[in-house]
Amino acid sequence: MVKFSLSEREYERRVEKVRKVLRRRRLDALYLTNSTSIFYLTGYSFITTERPAALIIPLDGKITFMGPLLEEDHVPLKTRIIEEVKTYVDYPGEKHPIDYFADFLKEMKLANKRIGIDNKAGAAGIWGYKGPPITKKLRGAKFVDMKDLIPSMRLIKSEEEITLIRESAKWANLAHSLLQEYTEEGLWDVEVALAATYEASTIMKKTLGPEYEPLRRSVPVSAGFRGQVGEMSAIPHSMATKRVIRKGDVVVTGASADVGGYSCELERTMIVGKPTAKQKRYFNVMVKAQEAAFNTFKPGVKCSEIDKATIRVFKKAGLMHLVRHHSGHGLGLEGHEPPWLDIGNDEPLKAGMVVSCEPGIYETGFAGFRHSDTVLITEDGAEIITYYPRDLDSLTIT
Amino acid sequence: MVKFSLSEREYERRVEKVRKVLRRRRLDALYLTNSTSIFYLTGYSFITTERPAALIIPLDGKITFMGPLLEEDHVPLKTRIIEEVKTYVDYPGEKHPIDYFADFLKEMKLANKRIGIDNKAGAAGIWGYKGPPITKKLRGAKFVDMKDLIPSMRLIKSEEEITLIRESAKWANLAHSLLQEYTEEGLWDVEVALAATYEASTIMKKTLGPEYEPLRRSVPVSAGFRGQVGEMSAIPHSMATKRVIRKGDVVVTGASADVGGYSCELERTMIVGKPTAKQKRYFNVMVKAQEAAFNTFKPGVKCSEIDKATIRVFKKAGLMHLVRHHSGHGLGLEGHEPPWLDIGNDEPLKAGMVVSCEPGIYETGFAGFRHSDTVLITEDGAEIITYYPRDLDSLTIT
Repeated sequence: MVKFSLSEREYERRVEKVRKVLRRRRLDALYLTNSTSIFYLTGYSFITTERPAALIIPLDGKITFMGPLLEEDHVPLKTRIIEEVKTYVDYPGEKHPIDYFADFLKEMKLANKRIGIDNKAGAAGIWGYKGPPITKKLRGAKFVDMKDLIPSMRLIKSEEEITLIRESAKWANLAHSLLQEYTEEGLWDVEVALAATYEASTIMKKTLGPEYEPLRRSVPVSAGFRGQVGEMSAIPHSMATKRVIRKGDVVVTGASADVGGYSCELERTMIVGKPTAKQKRYFNVMVKAQEAAFNTFKPGVKCSEIDKATIRVFKKAGLMHLVRHHSGHGLGLEGHEPPWLDIGNDEPLKAGMVVSCEPGIYETGFAGFRHSDTVLITEDGAEIITYYPRDLDSLTIT
Repeated sequence: MVKFSLSEREYERRVEKVRKVLRRRRLDALYLTNSTSIFYLTGYSFITTERPAALIIPLDGKITFMGPLLEEDHVPLKTRIIEEVKTYVDYPGEKHPIDYFADFLKEMKLANKRIGIDNKAGAAGIWGYKGPPITKKLRGAKFVDMKDLIPSMRLIKSEEEITLIRESAKWANLAHSLLQEYTEEGLWDVEVALAATYEASTIMKKTLGPEYEPLRRSVPVSAGFRGQVGEMSAIPHSMATKRVIRKGDVVVTGASADVGGYSCELERTMIVGKPTAKQKRYFNVMVKAQEAAFNTFKPGVKCSEIDKATIRVFKKAGLMHLVRHHSGHGLGLEGHEPPWLDIGNDEPLKAGMVVSCEPGIYETGFAGFRHSDTVLITEDGAEIITYYPRDLDSLTIT
């Protein structure tokens, strides 16, 4: 049976680990404002807005979500890890939410305690939020910066997490194959993307059945180009293109699916029509660079070594001046996360890390060339989780 | 002719206004890390990642974007307001991006000057970013908190901004009408949403032609339910529903379109099948509350008065215990922005403010009822920009 989310036991293990750290650091509680961290510990996801929200993990006592009234009934529908919900009506309110939070912490007997915190404002603080930091509202407490704790716990993926990322890859592959099928001259990239996303999402839901829902994205699975069409494919973070796809265009794609809140990354360079000699050359150098990286992954190898392996290929081909970014990044819950496959990062790879592998080259006014695959570091090497074809023939659209 | 974006003159006026404030506050430059603020001043939008990026508006000297190499060729394609781009290769890099930023500020002769800043870290700091604050890297400079400047400039919309929001409303209305047409028993809400989004986006692009592209969203126009189906419609920020739409369901929708980076907000409560007496009652009370708010909007009225007008209706109907949030919020560039139509906010409404009007009631296990419309405060009252039908008959799906 396909798993759609982590087991409750997995979340409990994470909370236990947090409490172990609290004990070691002589802290009485952890105060988290980052929604990804809150999801990581509880499986609860919500829309972050100007309204302050936080999760409190006390060393002893109930795991408590503090947030706006509109989340009150949402929490117990989505998680059993959160044991109590404390709310204010809305922001800014007649009494400021941060004053409520200070009162809630007093009720929890934390007013004079040592509290680890990921953000001393005490709130995510986006979309026009204003307010005093919680650290000024609870002067008797000692707040200790713990913003690295949850990100560091996320670095090594568990078996359960890897299962979800593998499942994500299956559906990303389906969406990508529909995207390729629908790509043709005269269509706008967004049109092709939405058709593939609609079709793949409908199939994914029908196949996985009534128990499936995306936890952190608005659609189950999506595929698209993000504007990387023709000369705009030379802009790695292009966001949109005005014109339609034309014969001769290089297009760069992306596909991913939400399974239990986890995602993979799958990107391909495709060519519309018969590739030119220059397109072939750039494409093949890019593929060679990615293969060099694939062959370098194993536990103990420094992250910088992956970047260096690709740089050697680009330098040898005389195309190093077309490189615009490093070779990859960790992934799982966020678009990008550590570790960074960057020449400046000498941290060693470890079994259980999951990274994108995506060396690319970009020539302004011409085109960009990048595949991205999701790679799991294993005990003795690496496994490529995404398996869509990488060769030019398979990716030529005629 | 339809306008798709602001004129360059409008961006220039905003920069002039910033420089006037700099002069008044005796500051030599403004340092912005917030991507919405950067877009507001330049029309340039980019994907915010762990890679630091910032806009520098010097009092005298070139408007400069500092960011990763992958944005270098992107900037001049999208804006003429930014006069210089300074880049580092990637994050974390052999030399930290913040060290580059300190060097760039020295090159710009700002090392010993007074610099207004929206975030003392000097970087948006998301997705696993780590680094020292720019304030520690440039000890000779005096950094002054200016995080409220751009949000306060955004409060009153110009004629050009209002034109874009009006155009957004047209397309949101189209997408919503397709959403309503496609809604039926047995379909999953995401399926209906993606079908309407695909169809409306394709029509919008075909109608607006080769010059149109969304500037801040991935699709031109979208409509959907965000999981607010049946009993999950009682959760205002529901994110997803597992089950399909059934006869008797109350569903709450949302639609918006990107025109020049600006959006409207349009939401409706629809009923699938013949409404029950209780559904009718809740629906009609909600509509009455929204009308009470509509009739209260005008310049000089406190934001709290709008909330109070809706509260009076809910109290009179004996349904105040079902209220979960205030009556609305400003909008334009972000999902929510000031001013807040909240009982705790006594700021006066002013001509040119654009707000959502969306009082709602929610009964756990039963359903939620909320329409949202986009309202412009005019010189002598208010104008409702979104115009989709609000009455029960029009919103009943049979």
